[in-house]
Amino acid sequence: MKKSIAILGSTGSIGRQTLDVVSASSNFAKVFALATKGYLNIFKQQLKKFRPKYAYIADEIFDKQNFSKYGAKILEGKSSLEKIASDKNVDIVVMAIVGTAGLKAVISAIRSQKTIALASKEILVAAGDIVMSLSKKYKAQILPIDSEHSAIFQCLECNRQNKIRRIILTASGGPFKNYSKKQIDSVTAKQALAHPTWNMGPKITIDSSTLMNKGLEVIEAHHLFQVPYEKIEVVIHPQSIVHSMVEFEDGVILAQLGVPDMRTAIQYALFYPKRLQKNFGIVNLSEIKNLSFEKPDTEKFPCLDLAYYAGKKGGTAPAVLSAANDVAVELFLNNKIKFYDIPKIISKVLKNHRFIKTPTLEQILESEIWARNFARKLSE
Amino acid sequence: MKKSIAILGSTGSIGRQTLDVVSASSNFAKVFALATKGYLNIFKQQLKKFRPKYAYIADEIFDKQNFSKYGAKILEGKSSLEKIASDKNVDIVVMAIVGTAGLKAVISAIRSQKTIALASKEILVAAGDIVMSLSKKYKAQILPIDSEHSAIFQCLECNRQNKIRRIILTASGGPFKNYSKKQIDSVTAKQALAHPTWNMGPKITIDSSTLMNKGLEVIEAHHLFQVPYEKIEVVIHPQSIVHSMVEFEDGVILAQLGVPDMRTAIQYALFYPKRLQKNFGIVNLSEIKNLSFEKPDTEKFPCLDLAYYAGKKGGTAPAVLSAANDVAVELFLNNKIKFYDIPKIISKVLKNHRFIKTPTLEQILESEIWARNFARKLSE
Repeated sequence: MKKSIAILGSTGSIGRQTLDVVSASSNFAKVFALATKGYLNIFKQQLKKFRPKYAYIADEIFDKQNFSKYGAKILEGKSSLEKIASDKNVDIVVMAIVGTAGLKAVISAIRSQKTIALASKEILVAAGDIVMSLSKKYKAQILPIDSEHSAIFQCLECNRQNKIRRIILTASGGPFKNYSKKQIDSVTAKQALAHPTWNMGPKITIDSSTLMNKGLEVIEAHHLFQVPYEKIEVVIHPQSIVHSMVEFEDGVILAQLGVPDMRTAIQYALFYPKRLQKNFGIVNLSEIKNLSFEKPDTEKFPCLDLAYYAGKKGGTAPAVLSAANDVAVELFLNNKIKFYDIPKIISKVLKNHRFIKTPTLEQILESEIWARNFARKLSE
Repeated sequence: MKKSIAILGSTGSIGRQTLDVVSASSNFAKVFALATKGYLNIFKQQLKKFRPKYAYIADEIFDKQNFSKYGAKILEGKSSLEKIASDKNVDIVVMAIVGTAGLKAVISAIRSQKTIALASKEILVAAGDIVMSLSKKYKAQILPIDSEHSAIFQCLECNRQNKIRRIILTASGGPFKNYSKKQIDSVTAKQALAHPTWNMGPKITIDSSTLMNKGLEVIEAHHLFQVPYEKIEVVIHPQSIVHSMVEFEDGVILAQLGVPDMRTAIQYALFYPKRLQKNFGIVNLSEIKNLSFEKPDTEKFPCLDLAYYAGKKGGTAPAVLSAANDVAVELFLNNKIKFYDIPKIISKVLKNHRFIKTPTLEQILESEIWARNFARKLSE
């Protein structure tokens, strides 16, 4: 039977790649619902091609007729994402909305015991404790779409009874790995957008260049795999072939390797536990010749330490870190601030925020709003 | 409850390392029986330290009193190995006897539905079809002790429903990897015994330097994992950190990494599916810095192709290959022949042997005897 898939955030990088995977395996999957914010031309093409039952467009004025003509019922109202995520006809909810805007939909999916293919790492960063304890309570499986976390998930298969000694998250190191601090100080957004190995959206590409992306992934891994921060290590691996590793108590490391293409991780999550034959590139190790590894330079890339700090502090700190980073990255993308202003802003926001140790969902969302506003004020 | 272990071949390299593992995890394992051929001083120490219930010494004249004083019943007679392997008090039979001398004991263990931790790759090379079909019939699990096959086994865990695209066996390349053909032509046994990464017995160390060890492992992998030869690839990886890999149909590669120490693979086999906390060294990738990979040079190391040839031919060919290699290696170790005489002898023996497509066990053992005699004759 075909898996019935709802893609929330279908016009972003992950959303579009998810539809690539569905196209490539159309015997095994069908699109039940799509949701977007903006990018209406792309969205219209998606409706035309994939003919979902439901569609939702957030925060836009649009001609409904123009979209409903492809057969989808166009949903309205703020709770539409939650409705889609809990619909009885959905097997898998792909959460690919940037930031925490999809948080309530994830919780709705969990309460309806859906499988969630999660790309929006900010959701676990901001509300990992709440989301993971609910997913446990409702026995809703969360499958990571991040290639690193997909790799870790795959390495842990059949090893869940075995104690983890270390999770080793690999990072490409970004385009400025070999720059001096002084050179990095003057890099532009355009330079940062030229990622050496991964083809991703602009926000995550900047996060890769600051190593904040890896920092957020550390927090994500902490929640997904319930591993303390002391056991999560980041190693720079410029070829991006080893997507991550798990070391067990017997000293054995299992690693997952593949070409740097998100679609493999997406496909794995959609059809788990089955691996489909379709693939998006093959690794040829004797052509690649070398896989190299080095320690991250946290002097040059202070965002990684900021993320560890916020993660270990817990409570509202990771949500504040992530929200402040959002604003700082946006400012950097618009050439309003310099590269090293990103960690400076985040650091100041973290210092000034009123920390709550065990926040409610509302308190988390409020602390995010506060962090965004405060970060914007700092740059004025 | 402690696992009750019989170690057949306890004084060899694998046997001694197995006892290291038992010592390190004495809360989880106890030695039920030990067997050796020669090395009586070491054996006596083992009896004294591990106090097995049974002991067997093959083909030697010895003072029984001298050995029985440590409480072990000293078995006598040719079928003693089989008796130990099928004893109702044994949980795991560790088969670490060089060559195919333990073949009948393995079959006895299979018929008694024991778990077999198999180090003697020659057994699967010579009689893989028979051994594997019996192990299936009697539901006796064969766990590999070779680090490469242990790695593959670990990568396949929970992926048995998924199709294998390739098994990638790693090889250190041996000490002559960067020698010219002319230089290799004049190497001595002493040079060949200086293996760059693994500490093993002399026969397997020579096999590593000719790549025959990898060839035998290809045949072993074919049987253990029931994968056709076309899907088994060898890649040279001088650091011996990646112990082997499996590529699935979705293009994902799972790899197992560890320090080059057999004891990790032995421990894994003894306590499978549990990984014990004890470990024999930790991999530090940012210290190692580079993992490199290259294609094997079969011009310089023709033994690998000979093994693929014999494996694909099947029947008695792999047994003949392995027996001829045994003799050739022994001659090389005794400085009777040159390095490139090893593949020459094997090749001639293969060409002259009377091939049987679906041999009985007896025919396999006969073809081995023939091959040994013919190989010896060739060098006279």
